[in-house]
Amino acid sequence: MEFSSKLLEQAVNEMAGLPGIGKRTALRLVLHLLRRPEEETTALTSALLRLRTEVKLCESCHNISDQLLCEICANPKRNHELICVVEDIRDVMAIENTGQFQGIYHVLGGKISPMDGVGPSQLKISTLVEKVRSGLVSELIFALSATMEGDTTNFYIYNQVKSFNLKTSTIARGISVGDQLEFADEVTLGRSILHRVPFEDSLRT
Amino acid sequence: MEFSSKLLEQAVNEMAGLPGIGKRTALRLVLHLLRRPEEETTALTSALLRLRTEVKLCESCHNISDQLLCEICANPKRNHELICVVEDIRDVMAIENTGQFQGIYHVLGGKISPMDGVGPSQLKISTLVEKVRSGLVSELIFALSATMEGDTTNFYIYNQVKSFNLKTSTIARGISVGDQLEFADEVTLGRSILHRVPFEDSLRT
Repeated sequence: MEFSSKLLEQAVNEMAGLPGIGKRTALRLVLHLLRRPEEETTALTSALLRLRTEVKLCESCHNISDQLLCEICANPKRNHELICVVEDIRDVMAIENTGQFQGIYHVLGGKISPMDGVGPSQLKISTLVEKVRSGLVSELIFALSATMEGDTTNFYIYNQVKSFNLKTSTIARGISVGDQLEFADEVTLGRSILHRVPFEDSLRT
Repeated sequence: MEFSSKLLEQAVNEMAGLPGIGKRTALRLVLHLLRRPEEETTALTSALLRLRTEVKLCESCHNISDQLLCEICANPKRNHELICVVEDIRDVMAIENTGQFQGIYHVLGGKISPMDGVGPSQLKISTLVEKVRSGLVSELIFALSATMEGDTTNFYIYNQVKSFNLKTSTIARGISVGDQLEFADEVTLGRSILHRVPFEDSLRT
């Protein structure tokens, strides 16, 4: 691409650095901003900057949050003995959308994946085990992707907590194997939480 | 979508305001920025802000530019008597990519389209007629989209300049009717500039 403006070229290159955005799309987006009032660009950039600099991770569940404790962990009406273990904050959003879950979450920040160089130490597993050790947890629900990496992660955590007195379960595999959690429909996902099965049982299938 | 963070929600909403970006894509892009070093977000936002506040339109051809005159208009090696009339700066980029054109451009900023409420007065037509009137132009090449709106715009300009002593041509219609200029391949587009035809001839087809 031949650019008549360095400023334009730079903006397009930065935009094209986002995943799934090619040069042509980036150009289209940037030219759109140029055609619109300056306030739209300011609103976009300041929202992105504020998010990046001010957002926090909840110090209890590692969900994204504006405060030290996220709204879910700070809510006394939620069942704090029931913890749903998820990979990603998008999974929290997906489960919250179903309206079927009244417990709290624990966001691991990924799953164990030797192929991608992600080991247990890069995930928020130790803080989860600590919560279990403190005796305040009655049940862990594993709600990770139905993939090999998800299963590995479930099993790794299960081994760390099985000596403690608590129930462990996985969400029902209504979700087809190999699918990613965030693309499941709300009904399937909601039922899979209601019909969770003891983790020991899930190993036998 | 249920957001656990107002900052996240705002950033996603702003991102989803861009054309062709849905909420889910916006969330993916924003979470990508959160996972990457802060410098990437700063680089993106400052590039967009600088572009939006500092970029100029060339005062001669209305192409996007960092200076008062764009690089093409300021280049003494270009043939300033030969003006290629285009809708959009993306068309300038497309033609420059072919390397077949040594003249200069005139960017109209759109085409006459009553359906979209765009009349001749919203386009940069008067400055083009002024250039022709000054007697410094030997040929106008119409390189607008091969659509009804493009043809209407060609014809409108042609009527304004036909009394002056200059050649008018349109790029060869190797480009299929109904196609948009920016998606044409470089060879077809390059040839269509080399094989341009007198405007009067193009009316007969």
